[in-house]
Amino acid sequence: MVKNNIPIETIKRTVTYLRYLEREKQKGVRIISSRNITYLLNIPPAQFRKDLSFFGEFGKRGVGYNVEILITTLKELLGLDKKIKAIVVGAGRLGTALVQYPGFLEINVEIVGAFDNDIRKIGRSIKGIYIYNIKDVKKFIMKNKVKIALLCVPADSAQSVANTLVEAGIKSILNFAPVVLILPEGINIANVDMASEIGSIIYRMKEISQ
Amino acid sequence: MVKNNIPIETIKRTVTYLRYLEREKQKGVRIISSRNITYLLNIPPAQFRKDLSFFGEFGKRGVGYNVEILITTLKELLGLDKKIKAIVVGAGRLGTALVQYPGFLEINVEIVGAFDNDIRKIGRSIKGIYIYNIKDVKKFIMKNKVKIALLCVPADSAQSVANTLVEAGIKSILNFAPVVLILPEGINIANVDMASEIGSIIYRMKEISQ
Repeated sequence: MVKNNIPIETIKRTVTYLRYLEREKQKGVRIISSRNITYLLNIPPAQFRKDLSFFGEFGKRGVGYNVEILITTLKELLGLDKKIKAIVVGAGRLGTALVQYPGFLEINVEIVGAFDNDIRKIGRSIKGIYIYNIKDVKKFIMKNKVKIALLCVPADSAQSVANTLVEAGIKSILNFAPVVLILPEGINIANVDMASEIGSIIYRMKEISQ
Repeated sequence: MVKNNIPIETIKRTVTYLRYLEREKQKGVRIISSRNITYLLNIPPAQFRKDLSFFGEFGKRGVGYNVEILITTLKELLGLDKKIKAIVVGAGRLGTALVQYPGFLEINVEIVGAFDNDIRKIGRSIKGIYIYNIKDVKKFIMKNKVKIALLCVPADSAQSVANTLVEAGIKSILNFAPVVLILPEGINIANVDMASEIGSIIYRMKEISQ
């Protein structure tokens, strides 16, 4: 049985487990111990078992986990068992890197298009992913039933672009712009700001050295 | 007076304020109200004032903040007043995007080199940043007194590369590899895993729709 209110950090770690298990499966590994899993991932075995316990009962003590079954079950529980379409909005340097980021495919997320307002970019392709005119994003989202957008536009247009995306049916936004988006309830937002992350480690570094 | 134990989220938001203030300064803005600041950033004015209060007293009610002074003071308090050298380790797609990420320069972080073990990449440049042989990373860090590394190598080499970086004098690692690094006390690590972020919003999306 899946428990309610699974901590967000457990979810994130479980995605990491899943990606690791996929790589092991591709190497031909069929049975794996929690010790094996946690050795590479540097997560204590107890943490791994606790994280898994949120999703149900897996494996037997001393026998290990069936890799295939564990992958299938976790994917299903996380909602990653079916291919999910995502778009990248803003085809600058970061957007371009994200289009090609291999980690997304590992969790069944497929980037189906990129969007920009720069006519020098529109019509080009990044590794087979077409860059469309941002003006067509609403039509594209509705037609292709896209639910996820990776928002990589400049700070001062992020909110208005996000509004358009949500109007068209986007349910989740991974926001790379350095602004806090205000969106209707029921829309999921996760913020990734690399400058803030690095700024915070610099501050901690300063604190430690004092 | 700067308070101790400033929450990490306050630090991250303050970096965002700083980047915004820099952009306003470049537009010629000299005085700014907390309402102005929070309007674009979508942060409630009370949150902004509370965040700032951790660092001391700024501005006067009804008068607003002197942009220049606020920038200078916050930079100093955050440890971002002097240029800080950083390197990118792993010059794949993500590493290449990070080398060119404009947000780092805004907070005085300068990428001074990239490193890889792929001989097809070594010797090339990304926007003026040279890609060195990973074998020379230790020498480079010591010679240039680099304190920060952005780690973008594959999962299975992340820990061993991180060990080398720390041995050479790196104090902070922004880790993009999907592993949890184990490093000596006093080393700052911030983890950025895009697949985990997107996995977690997919899970929340699933939860909401049930």
